Amino acid sequence: MARRGEFALIEALFAPLAGADPRALGLADDAAVLGTEGMGDLVVSVDCLVSGVHFLPFDPPESIAAKCLRVNLSDMAAMGAKPVGAFLSASLSPTLDDAWLEAFSRGLRVDLEAYALSLLGGDTVSTPGPATFSITILGSVTPGGALRRSGARVGDDLWVSGTLGDGALGLRVLQGLLFGMPEAHRDHLIDRYRHPRPRVALGMALAQGELATACMDISDGPLADAGHMAKASGVALEILAPLLPLSDAAADLVADDPALFDLILGGGDDYELIFTAPPDRREAVMAVGRETDTPVTRLGRVVTGEGARILDADGAEIALARPGWSHDE
Amino acid sequence: MARRGEFALIEALFAPLAGADPRALGLADDAAVLGTEGMGDLVVSVDCLVSGVHFLPFDPPESIAAKCLRVNLSDMAAMGAKPVGAFLSASLSPTLDDAWLEAFSRGLRVDLEAYALSLLGGDTVSTPGPATFSITILGSVTPGGALRRSGARVGDDLWVSGTLGDGALGLRVLQGLLFGMPEAHRDHLIDRYRHPRPRVALGMALAQGELATACMDISDGPLADAGHMAKASGVALEILAPLLPLSDAAADLVADDPALFDLILGGGDDYELIFTAPPDRREAVMAVGRETDTPVTRLGRVVTGEGARILDADGAEIALARPGWSHDE
Repeated sequence: MARRGEFALIEALFAPLAGADPRALGLADDAAVLGTEGMGDLVVSVDCLVSGVHFLPFDPPESIAAKCLRVNLSDMAAMGAKPVGAFLSASLSPTLDDAWLEAFSRGLRVDLEAYALSLLGGDTVSTPGPATFSITILGSVTPGGALRRSGARVGDDLWVSGTLGDGALGLRVLQGLLFGMPEAHRDHLIDRYRHPRPRVALGMALAQGELATACMDISDGPLADAGHMAKASGVALEILAPLLPLSDAAADLVADDPALFDLILGGGDDYELIFTAPPDRREAVMAVGRETDTPVTRLGRVVTGEGARILDADGAEIALARPGWSHDE
Repeated sequence: MARRGEFALIEALFAPLAGADPRALGLADDAAVLGTEGMGDLVVSVDCLVSGVHFLPFDPPESIAAKCLRVNLSDMAAMGAKPVGAFLSASLSPTLDDAWLEAFSRGLRVDLEAYALSLLGGDTVSTPGPATFSITILGSVTPGGALRRSGARVGDDLWVSGTLGDGALGLRVLQGLLFGMPEAHRDHLIDRYRHPRPRVALGMALAQGELATACMDISDGPLADAGHMAKASGVALEILAPLLPLSDAAADLVADDPALFDLILGGGDDYELIFTAPPDRREAVMAVGRETDTPVTRLGRVVTGEGARILDADGAEIALARPGWSHDE
C-alpha cells in the first residue's frame, strides 16, 4: 500500500489546507500563533471520531473529513461562536493509502473553504488500529456572550433547528437495517448521517441577539441531550411529540413502523441545535431562523422539576424503550 | 472488565482535573470559554500519542499521562510560550479498566498541577484499537514574540538544553535491547524515556529576553530536527560531535559501543530545546540557563549552505548509518 511518510504527507495533503494563513506558520513550526487583539472570548472544543464507531469505514473519505469538521463546527454553533480555525490530529491506519488520504484532504478542503476556515495545525501519526480523527476547533464570541446549557428558565419555550432523527435513521439504512423506502428518502437519510449541517449561522445569531437562554447541539439524541440541558439548568424540559420536526423520509418511516419513534428521540447524529428562549422572543427567534435560512421549530417548554419528558397530544408522558443513547455505551 | 460509561468517566476522572477553573465550564458544556483580554498571541499545538507507537502499553498509566502532556508542553517551550490550558481527546481501548484510567487521571493531575494548568475540555470515546491520546495545548506569548524555527542566521551559535539520546536509549532498555549497565543508569534512561522534561521556563526566558533567533524542540532526533531548522531558516547547521551533551549513562554506553552514537543523534524522545543565538549573547544564554535551572550547551554554529552536519574534532563530517528517525516511518 503506497503511502507517503509523515512529513511528505503533511506537506502534500495538509499544508495546502493552511493556505496562506500566516497563523498556521505553514504547518512547519511547533505550533500555530494567533493574535487575540479584539478576538473577544475564545471558545475551544475537541471532538474525536473513530472509524467503525463514529463513521463507517466504507463511508467516502470526503464525507468522513466533512463529518469530522462539522461535528466540531456544531459545538461552535452550540456556543454561538464564530469559528476561527481548526487543528487536525490524524491517527492513520495502515489500510489508508495515498488515494484515500488525498480524497480525505480534498473533502476537508471543500468544507474548510465553505466555512472560511484554515487548517492551523495538528499532528499526523500511524496507528495499527482504526483511523481516528480528533479535531480541535477555535471560535470567538463577544466577551461573556457564549451560549451555555445552563441558562434555561421556567416558562421558556424549547426550540430545535432542522429535523430530528434523520442521522440515526441514515445510519440504519447504511447498516442494511432499514430498506424499502423511496430512493430520494434513502439518499436524504444517508446524506444527513454523513453530512451533518452545523447550525453555525443560527447559533451566532442567537448569541448576538441575546435570544437564547440556553443552547446545545444534539449529539446523543434529542431526549438525552434535553436531559443534559435540564440538569445543567436545574429545570425540567417537556417535549411535545406532535411538534417534533420530522423530514418526509422520517415521517414516512415512523408512519410505517411507530417503534422507530424511539430511535428518532433516542438516536444520535443529528447535530441540530436545541435551545430555549422566553415566549416574548418567539417572533425574533423565527426571524433569525429565516435570516439564517435555518428551519426552527418550537417543540416544548421549560417547567419546574428535573429531567426531560416527551408528552403525547393529551399531555401524557410517553415511555421510551431506550431513552438515551451514546456512542460509547 | 469494569469500566464506567462516557459521562460517568468524565465526571469521575476528568472533571476533577478542571478543578474550579471557570473556563472549563465543569467540562459539562460543548466547549471551553477563555477570555483573551491581555493574553497576547495565542499559541496552539496538538500532539497525538498512540499506544505501542509513542509509548509502551505496559508503561505505568501515570507515566503515559505525564508523557502525553509533556510532549505538548515541549511545543509550548519551543515557541517560548506560557502554557494556559490543555484539552484531552482520549480514545480508550477496551483493555483499559477503571483502575488504569484512575491511575492515568492521577498522573495527569500531578503534572497539570506541577505546571499550574487546568484540563479545559476534551472528548472521551471508545476504540477497538490501541489507546490514543491527543492533547491540544494553548499558550500565550507577547504579541509577535513567539520563537520560530526560521530565524537562525549565519554566524549564530547553536545551543541545546539538557542531554541528548537518553530517551532513545531508555526505549531500547525497555525493549530489552540494551542491558548490563548499572542500575542507576538504567533507571535514569528509562525515566528520561517515560518522563520528558519540557523546557518551558527556558523557552519563556529565551523569548522574553529576545535571546534566541530560532528555537524548536527535539522530537525526531537532534540531527533530523537540526535539519528541519536549517531548512526553515535557509542556512546550514554544524554540530560538533565532541560538544554533544551526554548523560553519564549515555556516555558510558557510547564508550562501550560507539555504534550507539548514531542512535543518540538519530533517535527521538529527547524533547530538549535546540536553539540559535548570536555569539554576543553567550553570557545571557548561560545566565537564563542558570536562572531556569536548565543545563544549556553550545554545540555548534550556523553557516551558509543547507542541511545539518555532524563534525568530528578535526572538522570532518561524520556519516551516520541512519541520520533521521520518525515515529511514523
